[in-house]
Amino acid sequence: MIVKNANLNGVISDIFIKNGIITDIIKSEKNEKIDYSDIIFDAENKIVIPSFFNTHTHSAMTLLRGYADDMPLRPWLSEKIWPAEAKLIPEDIYWGTKLACLEMIKTGTTFFNDMYWCIDSIIKAATEMNMRFAVSATFIDIGKDTDELIKELEDTYKRVSIIDSPNMIFTVAPHAIYTVSEKMLKYAGKFAKEHDLFIHTHLSETKKEYDDCLKEHGMKPAFYLDSFGLLTEKTILAHCVWLDDDEIKLIADRGATVSHNPISNMKLSVGKAFNYRKMKQANVQVTLGTDGCSSNNNLNMAETMKFASILQKFAYDDPTLMTAEECFKIASLNGAEAFGIKAGKIEKGYEADFLVLKSNIYDMVPGFNVYSDIVYSVGNNFVDSVFCKGKLIMEHGKIEGEDEIISQAKKISQKFLS
Amino acid sequence: MIVKNANLNGVISDIFIKNGIITDIIKSEKNEKIDYSDIIFDAENKIVIPSFFNTHTHSAMTLLRGYADDMPLRPWLSEKIWPAEAKLIPEDIYWGTKLACLEMIKTGTTFFNDMYWCIDSIIKAATEMNMRFAVSATFIDIGKDTDELIKELEDTYKRVSIIDSPNMIFTVAPHAIYTVSEKMLKYAGKFAKEHDLFIHTHLSETKKEYDDCLKEHGMKPAFYLDSFGLLTEKTILAHCVWLDDDEIKLIADRGATVSHNPISNMKLSVGKAFNYRKMKQANVQVTLGTDGCSSNNNLNMAETMKFASILQKFAYDDPTLMTAEECFKIASLNGAEAFGIKAGKIEKGYEADFLVLKSNIYDMVPGFNVYSDIVYSVGNNFVDSVFCKGKLIMEHGKIEGEDEIISQAKKISQKFLS
Repeated sequence: MIVKNANLNGVISDIFIKNGIITDIIKSEKNEKIDYSDIIFDAENKIVIPSFFNTHTHSAMTLLRGYADDMPLRPWLSEKIWPAEAKLIPEDIYWGTKLACLEMIKTGTTFFNDMYWCIDSIIKAATEMNMRFAVSATFIDIGKDTDELIKELEDTYKRVSIIDSPNMIFTVAPHAIYTVSEKMLKYAGKFAKEHDLFIHTHLSETKKEYDDCLKEHGMKPAFYLDSFGLLTEKTILAHCVWLDDDEIKLIADRGATVSHNPISNMKLSVGKAFNYRKMKQANVQVTLGTDGCSSNNNLNMAETMKFASILQKFAYDDPTLMTAEECFKIASLNGAEAFGIKAGKIEKGYEADFLVLKSNIYDMVPGFNVYSDIVYSVGNNFVDSVFCKGKLIMEHGKIEGEDEIISQAKKISQKFLS
Repeated sequence: MIVKNANLNGVISDIFIKNGIITDIIKSEKNEKIDYSDIIFDAENKIVIPSFFNTHTHSAMTLLRGYADDMPLRPWLSEKIWPAEAKLIPEDIYWGTKLACLEMIKTGTTFFNDMYWCIDSIIKAATEMNMRFAVSATFIDIGKDTDELIKELEDTYKRVSIIDSPNMIFTVAPHAIYTVSEKMLKYAGKFAKEHDLFIHTHLSETKKEYDDCLKEHGMKPAFYLDSFGLLTEKTILAHCVWLDDDEIKLIADRGATVSHNPISNMKLSVGKAFNYRKMKQANVQVTLGTDGCSSNNNLNMAETMKFASILQKFAYDDPTLMTAEECFKIASLNGAEAFGIKAGKIEKGYEADFLVLKSNIYDMVPGFNVYSDIVYSVGNNFVDSVFCKGKLIMEHGKIEGEDEIISQAKKISQKFLS
């Protein structure tokens, strides 16, 4: 595959791709190397930028977009979200994940780190949509039989580890320290270490979590998690709003990754702004997530970037905090790095995950600074085409099967209304 | 004009329009009244909702989108924005306003309250784009000759008041209490009263403004403004972040309108969140504005609604604050009411300002709640067609002359780079 005439930082270039990797980049005007027997995508002077890596979501919850909003946390969960989720069958999760993938691709995301149930449905959906993804064996064991959960985790891992899917990463995902027992957290740490697995969990979303942990376990949440070997270089920690300085230092020391979810945090009134400045000073790997659609209500990483950057400026009284370019890197390169994927840059040797932007759209006019325009201006209509691992997964706005996805998702949603 | 098969709150209806007014609404299935000699727009079961009223912007600054971001306020203004603005000639303002109108129509706005120079260019542009608008005779007189400014204001008013434009409202717009002299503020109050004019000004954007006013004038900003007769039922106050309880009460008593600009406030680090709860308790008329593109960087009222609603939940620790439906009303009905326009509802007797939404777009799937979807989910690609005063000003995403607007705006932007 050759992507020709791509505008890369103002230089019109041809991008050569083989086996999903960028093998060469040559200025178009000087390029005599084009092999016209290869597949050619003409980017026609369109701007090409790295794609986004969404490091925390619950993708199938896209089925619950707009189902319950503007409610206090507890009744929202117990009266609306949980009863609705209880109605979901594996086929629903399959279509819900597809709907999520559709939205993510349309808005320039090529990877998502998921936390949800019915892992087989998720794998099938994401694989068919040609995305990169991390799926989780996720568990909550308050009031459940831990031994059964352990067996389930082992079975899931066995079943998933023989699936031949080069786009997939498997994560062990204890839901949170307040929903998983000590026994299960301990087992999860051991299991992840034994199999060298990624770990995905929620951490420090609310003050209550911090206060309760200190009271019940005599430790701050990050230290409590660490006591089970759950803070590693392969750990992704969603939220991390209420961390104190010691916890930030611990996370940096362990080399764990933080997934900041600004929209969800603000919408659910978590009471504090993620402290990006301190994370940066401590050299924590910061990435961005959308969270699920029931607390956002979309999966648009461009919008999430705007919220992230502007929230920092607002909450920490500094209009220079988290610049557009920095925010863009957090949403692309940092997310890729966190999962050991060499993407997030359009350079020789990098994975071919990138976006061809629409040209002449009003929200990128005049076009002084592409990072500013992507982070602060665009809506959800700026991506012309998407490459993931060298494969063209959206061509000029079109994704295979999108009408069916939308109609299936609408059909499924009927069951929540009865 | 008849808009047939419109989905109005779930009821498929035909909307009859005459002279820009909704004259009747009839259930489509029961309707035998359609006169096929009339112009028919088939909304094909698409959802129809009121359009948005953007109550504070500097539209021509769209030319500076992305020109300077992530800078502290003072150098941002003095080193970047003001020198760039000094290069603008009236024709540039004309094209800049057109670019702004293009973006506003595409994202569902049919009215904007502008504050900028070269009023003739703005009137020409907005009129050609078929929008409703308020234009301002705006002035800053620090270091300027006040008598000259008074003459200018009178001349502008004379010139504009004879223009036959039923879509236009004229406002007297002292920039702010800290950029306009006492003499000029006094004159502006008198002039507005004499001619029964709308007043548009910035108020209480920063703490410095509050502190300085108290120190220099021995009065809080709202009281200082009021002392010149500038707080009336026809006054629009942009920002109002640092108002105290007495000021909120005064504004409510005077019946003035507040324009909340959440994105600009957050991006420029104004240090505090607009206090919606208190405004609501005091019965202040709250509306929404995008502010200009150099501090936002777009004019998308849907995005502004999301920021407004979510900022309240975050800043005041209450996920039930400013619900989606409430926020929608603030952005539509409240804005219209503030300018004495009977719009913001799709009912018999109301002005025909409304949007036909796209159907089957992923960001409105499943589609449980249209207010939730518009406020929390959509990007900038949700509007199929726009009616303003009964006129179809965008038809299936197309607006006359859009390519030329984009190419002219790009051409003009070159002058800022030299």
